Amino acid sequence: QDTEYREKARARLEQLTMPHWALGDLMDLAVDLAGITRSLKPPVKRKRVVVMAGDHGVTAEGVSRYPSEVTAQMVYNFVNGGAGINALARQAGAEVTVVDMGTAADLDDLVKAGKIIARKIGNGTQNMAHGPAMTRTHAVMAVEAGIEVANQLAPETDVFGTGDMGIGNTTPSTAIVAAMTGAPVAEVTGRGTGLDDDQLQQKIQVVERALKINRPDPSDGIDVLSKVGGFEIGGIAGLIIGAAAHRKPVLVDGFISTAGALIAYALEPFVRDFIICAHRSVEQGHRAMHERLGLRPLMDLNMRLGEGTGAALAMNLVEAAVAVLTEVATFEEAGVTGTPVE
Amino acid sequence: QDTEYREKARARLEQLTMPHWALGDLMDLAVDLAGITRSLKPPVKRKRVVVMAGDHGVTAEGVSRYPSEVTAQMVYNFVNGGAGINALARQAGAEVTVVDMGTAADLDDLVKAGKIIARKIGNGTQNMAHGPAMTRTHAVMAVEAGIEVANQLAPETDVFGTGDMGIGNTTPSTAIVAAMTGAPVAEVTGRGTGLDDDQLQQKIQVVERALKINRPDPSDGIDVLSKVGGFEIGGIAGLIIGAAAHRKPVLVDGFISTAGALIAYALEPFVRDFIICAHRSVEQGHRAMHERLGLRPLMDLNMRLGEGTGAALAMNLVEAAVAVLTEVATFEEAGVTGTPVE
Repeated sequence: QDTEYREKARARLEQLTMPHWALGDLMDLAVDLAGITRSLKPPVKRKRVVVMAGDHGVTAEGVSRYPSEVTAQMVYNFVNGGAGINALARQAGAEVTVVDMGTAADLDDLVKAGKIIARKIGNGTQNMAHGPAMTRTHAVMAVEAGIEVANQLAPETDVFGTGDMGIGNTTPSTAIVAAMTGAPVAEVTGRGTGLDDDQLQQKIQVVERALKINRPDPSDGIDVLSKVGGFEIGGIAGLIIGAAAHRKPVLVDGFISTAGALIAYALEPFVRDFIICAHRSVEQGHRAMHERLGLRPLMDLNMRLGEGTGAALAMNLVEAAVAVLTEVATFEEAGVTGTPVE
Repeated sequence: QDTEYREKARARLEQLTMPHWALGDLMDLAVDLAGITRSLKPPVKRKRVVVMAGDHGVTAEGVSRYPSEVTAQMVYNFVNGGAGINALARQAGAEVTVVDMGTAADLDDLVKAGKIIARKIGNGTQNMAHGPAMTRTHAVMAVEAGIEVANQLAPETDVFGTGDMGIGNTTPSTAIVAAMTGAPVAEVTGRGTGLDDDQLQQKIQVVERALKINRPDPSDGIDVLSKVGGFEIGGIAGLIIGAAAHRKPVLVDGFISTAGALIAYALEPFVRDFIICAHRSVEQGHRAMHERLGLRPLMDLNMRLGEGTGAALAMNLVEAAVAVLTEVATFEEAGVTGTPVE
């Protein structure tokens, strides 16, 4: 972030007609946005949530309550405007862009109709409980594809949001946070779409096995991604790197998106300055991810949907922060007595 | 709230193309809105924050860092669109209506120009550290004025938000929460606009003295309001009662607004069903207020401005909740496999 613009923003915010820093987190966010965009009028009008979709071989281990077909079915739902992310993006005035990073389905009809972006690295990952989820080459390709999507969309986007769709993808995300932070798997494994106690134990064992077999190197983001990641997670990591390279704020959504952020941060630590954590999800290991990044999420609404829904909601807060910075009068401008009583 | 509409909303939300209740608090809010408005398409388009202004005799005790003149100066700031609430209301697409409930200033020019609503009960309250803040008659008049404002605005308002302006008004609000909950004064007294340690001790002593001298009866909302309240706090209580009587959702803002909600709840317990707590503020005693109401705030953004700023922000969440209820497809509608894997 640009220190000069952070300071300029802070100086203005301290003069606004209100007690010092009385809008708390919104004011911190306004300073970040000024530092990110190098502007005292950070552009935030053109908002976009990019939903990265991919399938997961590890679903063969019974780690999700829903079948893999649902990934592609939900892509159609996104395109038809009927999913949670569509409703929340509309409310926030954001566009939704769907990218096929690696679903197991043939989505050529949607690609040809210009409804989704095709960046398919493979027809779903391999089962990480038996070996690497993907080759190292595929991991690099996934991240590069995300960067290219950011490059493509940057000219028409002021604020990015990340989103994901992929049945089974809390399992690789759990493996990523465990690998990156060293936290015990049981501590960072959650119920995903709604596992019961037995299924949760099974999921913990699957993640432990995947880590034991693959031994991902936490200092190497590509190694972690290739061994226990997913195509859409790599795409999210790339999108974050690309957005940051364009000095655009990127709202990181829930558990899967933040797993992508951990990969991006391992590859390019500078991205941290451009990330805004939208919310804390119900998913158990999300807190450990935020701690690893050293970033505090804006909201906690007991959500656990993914798709970018938290990012879309938080776009209202980004707009609000900019409104505070740009529209509120200073004590001097408004003729309000700003000096406290002696 | 209407049980039948709550159930209908719940039934629809359980069929949406997402894991069960995956949008958490937004879905709870959607159920509340359906129950409040008796509709599966709760109207929320016309949003309005009502900012109640009043002055406080207790400022003579040195409980605020700002002089009382700032109350009226800020009313001009609201009218000119330069305050925090103006910026956040614009972001949320909400109107701002300012009511002079009892400022110490002559605001006739704004009244004649139709810029504010005149409901002045008095030129500021008496100093509650020496006796009742107002007469019982004035307390009744303040609440009635708030109800009448709600009646006047209801035909053109779908969602109300409460707001306040009044230098010194965290002090009566602290006295109200202490009186209503029995909590020790030191536990519920905060720094308001930014008191230092000595000033905080002074404020605690002032509140303790006001409670000792006046002995408000916690079972009698009018008694509490008259002895240790404020004109704008009475107006907020009345606005909440009026909004609830019209079956309109009312977003209650921060510490002062929630003090008004405590008075409203003491007078008419049914209002609780129509209240949505927007956020938890930094002010120390806010949590005890929410516990007393048995309601959980939607956000916690370390804000402490008042003016209705938290209510304005939360209007985005109200819109989002309605979007989820009305715009997201069900599994059947979208052709998505909704039944978990066996």
